[in-house]
Amino acid sequence: MRFILPEIKELLKTADRSAIRKVTSYFEPADIAEIWSELSSKQQLILFDTADTKLAADIFEFLKEDEMVELLNRLKTNRKRDILNEMSPDDRTDLLAMLPDEETEKLLPLLKEEEQVRTRELLAYKENTAGGLMTTDYISVPEAANISYILRELRTKAKEIDFIQKIYIVDKVKRLKGIIPLKDLLISGPKKRVDEVMETPFVSVNLDMDQEEVAHVFEKYDEPSLPVLDKLGRIKGVITVDDVIDVIQEEASEDIYHFGAAQVTDEYLSANPFSVAKKRVVWLIILALAGFISGSVLEHYSFLLSNIVTLSFFIPILMNTSGSAGTQAATVVVRGLATGEIKLPDVWRVIRKEFFIGILMGVIAGVITALRAILLQGDVMLGFTVAAAMIIAIVIATSLGGILPIIFKRLGVDPALMSGPLIATILDTTTLLIYFNITMLLLWRFK
Amino acid sequence: MRFILPEIKELLKTADRSAIRKVTSYFEPADIAEIWSELSSKQQLILFDTADTKLAADIFEFLKEDEMVELLNRLKTNRKRDILNEMSPDDRTDLLAMLPDEETEKLLPLLKEEEQVRTRELLAYKENTAGGLMTTDYISVPEAANISYILRELRTKAKEIDFIQKIYIVDKVKRLKGIIPLKDLLISGPKKRVDEVMETPFVSVNLDMDQEEVAHVFEKYDEPSLPVLDKLGRIKGVITVDDVIDVIQEEASEDIYHFGAAQVTDEYLSANPFSVAKKRVVWLIILALAGFISGSVLEHYSFLLSNIVTLSFFIPILMNTSGSAGTQAATVVVRGLATGEIKLPDVWRVIRKEFFIGILMGVIAGVITALRAILLQGDVMLGFTVAAAMIIAIVIATSLGGILPIIFKRLGVDPALMSGPLIATILDTTTLLIYFNITMLLLWRFK
Repeated sequence: MRFILPEIKELLKTADRSAIRKVTSYFEPADIAEIWSELSSKQQLILFDTADTKLAADIFEFLKEDEMVELLNRLKTNRKRDILNEMSPDDRTDLLAMLPDEETEKLLPLLKEEEQVRTRELLAYKENTAGGLMTTDYISVPEAANISYILRELRTKAKEIDFIQKIYIVDKVKRLKGIIPLKDLLISGPKKRVDEVMETPFVSVNLDMDQEEVAHVFEKYDEPSLPVLDKLGRIKGVITVDDVIDVIQEEASEDIYHFGAAQVTDEYLSANPFSVAKKRVVWLIILALAGFISGSVLEHYSFLLSNIVTLSFFIPILMNTSGSAGTQAATVVVRGLATGEIKLPDVWRVIRKEFFIGILMGVIAGVITALRAILLQGDVMLGFTVAAAMIIAIVIATSLGGILPIIFKRLGVDPALMSGPLIATILDTTTLLIYFNITMLLLWRFK
Repeated sequence: MRFILPEIKELLKTADRSAIRKVTSYFEPADIAEIWSELSSKQQLILFDTADTKLAADIFEFLKEDEMVELLNRLKTNRKRDILNEMSPDDRTDLLAMLPDEETEKLLPLLKEEEQVRTRELLAYKENTAGGLMTTDYISVPEAANISYILRELRTKAKEIDFIQKIYIVDKVKRLKGIIPLKDLLISGPKKRVDEVMETPFVSVNLDMDQEEVAHVFEKYDEPSLPVLDKLGRIKGVITVDDVIDVIQEEASEDIYHFGAAQVTDEYLSANPFSVAKKRVVWLIILALAGFISGSVLEHYSFLLSNIVTLSFFIPILMNTSGSAGTQAATVVVRGLATGEIKLPDVWRVIRKEFFIGILMGVIAGVITALRAILLQGDVMLGFTVAAAMIIAIVIATSLGGILPIIFKRLGVDPALMSGPLIATILDTTTLLIYFNITMLLLWRFK
């Protein structure tokens, strides 16, 4: 959609307001937001001030967080008020939650009384729960109403609400009793009572449900939107699936970053290298210190190394292969825990499976390594030693790789923090210990 | 939702058909599908045959692939016909695409004439494109129609279609001209012509667009459903966001598995350990063979190791730290390429950034390692040597970790295949070469 950039830049030069308005209304707000950073400050302001409030608020919602804050600071109070009131409650809350408290307190009074109350309520929910994801833009009607009542409600409210897929039927204390999909409204007679048409039971999520679990509910039931209920069953808001997509991407990114021992960064390309390095170096220092243990194992068995120099040639391959086997197992288990395929009680099935997989892969890798020792070093006993070490090291690698993320999960720690590099570091030490002990047992004894 | 299991089992014992029907209609199809595998074959059949066609088809769509195939084989031809005709076209196509061709050819004639044509058309699209994702369940009306015409269309078709969010307005040759969201229908007068009410322009995807790109479009525009157009702008189908969620999860899983050097598996817990081992061992062998290069480097420089045994104590920490630093950089770049944050032309920005990050982290890790050499081995020159090696090794690690996935992407290979273990293996060799050459330059010369 970059092709819209020259067109818009050309247009902004003319400063013909009606032409600008006509053309901007032809583009999607998301497309205008995408080229935002490539416009000059002045161009941004001309474009934004020319657009009508609805379009301006739509563009604003699609901007990146820092662009939002920067633009907001440059708007006149009146325009600020219009835009903030026009925004959808969930996006507005996200924006306000991001600002410093004193800034938020300055902006809140710009909102209409009713919006102020709703926004303060939304701000009170934790960001990564259903309450933090939901919007209060939804239509609820009393159980006693009929279809024509809903149609009247819709006519007054439909303009303000972006997505309406369902109408929510509530009792006197706002407890959710049923749901009417929009399409059913269209095919029901206007005199029908809502409780004759509404669907019950319905799927819902709890106000304090973690956002990852919310995403699982959406995935399971294939719903475009779901109501959020408090402990008493009262409807507090609605979550739409577009926000769930963001959650799924966020959670996947978090898992991948954690598993790669890289800290989560919002924006990589624009981030300061110092801040990225600062985040990553923490893990690197932990891994380096843990790596000292392997160094000490080597030091402890250095009499073996100085007597049989060929031994050292096999250290990289043993460490590397067991580290990779452990990473493979951990990858599958970390992902399985995230998607919900693997649950905590499955721990024994995982261990049995990984133990067996370890034996199969260990034998193959062991034979290959033994061949190298026999063919290149011409040392059959060395071949036996490295093969035996390889098999045991890989069995331990797959078993630990499978079980450690589950242990993390049971301890309430993100299983993805049992990262590939961390597992490789742990396995370096165990592999060296196995290697030297088998050497003592087989090779050293018969020298 | 496991609590529904005992209730349903109890119910199936009674074999009171009307009671079963009443109670099953009270549960969500997704919940019944979830406990499917815990029912006996006989219980499954009683439950399925008791449910009305609509509910049965809904339950069927939520089953796992193997459960679907197994159940289908056990149904009588009449029931098979009803269920297949009732299913939504996209789910039906996914099922048929999964079956052997001769099986598909046997099932297709069970479909109504019209459904057969649509299904054959859908089967022709590649599974991982927009055409393979879309459903043909949508409502399109001619431009000349008015709102009351749409309402009549809706009344006839709404029952069959699960999600209706938009009405698509087409010209005589089915080219998409505009879109009317359902809520706008409700607030427009019945006499209005559709071209007065319809939204234009609109967002759409192309028939042959890759599913990952389709997901990016959904993410960008926050739409609950999008039309799929062919090259001439004719509407061929509609993609709903619930299918996009599955794509996003699938793509994230694929990235994570690839990055962990583990092959993609559909079901981990129920998979045969032999088949899992077979998939993983391919990568392990490649990595092991690549690891031989490190062994040969060690062999080549063995005169250094046998003369200065303390050198070997630092091999694990150097290999481990550089491998981890490379994995960190690759993690961020692989994910950035997947989400679209990093694009191919950003390669120089990535290299510059990672080079600089490498220097920062290398100095810190170098100082820590030097301290170990000076304090524990009491060898200042060794300290300088390992510190210099560490700095250079980490700079190379972060730079390569950043650039290799981009090179893979440019070559048309999945960047995630430049996995953590593969990068660690490559870096093992470069790190050893750096270490021994610096030793020759600093330590060996002054011995």
